[in-house]
Amino acid sequence: MCEASAYLIEGEETKLVMEAVDTVEPEDDGLKLISIFGDQKFLKARIRSLFLVDHKILLEEIKSSE
Amino acid sequence: MCEASAYLIEGEETKLVMEAVDTVEPEDDGLKLISIFGDQKFLKARIRSLFLVDHKILLEEIKSSE
Repeated sequence: MCEASAYLIEGEETKLVMEAVDTVEPEDDGLKLISIFGDQKFLKARIRSLFLVDHKILLEEIKSSE
Repeated sequence: MCEASAYLIEGEETKLVMEAVDTVEPEDDGLKLISIFGDQKFLKARIRSLFLVDHKILLEEIKSSE
């Protein structure tokens, strides 16, 4: 299975926000993550980079001033 | 291996733009795709959605009027 873990980068810190992510859908003011178990999470974040072979999705916060 | 295929959605059509994508890095005016073989491609596109279990990355063009 090729699900990935999603991490949110906040300044110097990198926080795991969801494991086993299957689907990622960017929306106007953030993005929706859906895991292989059907769990959903909406985050005010954008994709910074994907490393699929390493099963990693790196996200960064969308600041309200943007 | 968990690389994916990247498809560009152009209106009604969906075009395969790169197979075996490992890394995706959104940039200001597009995104960079890097395959597991080290091939690189820059596209004026954004991520519409990811379906990791299906090994699919769907992209859409950034129109110059945006």
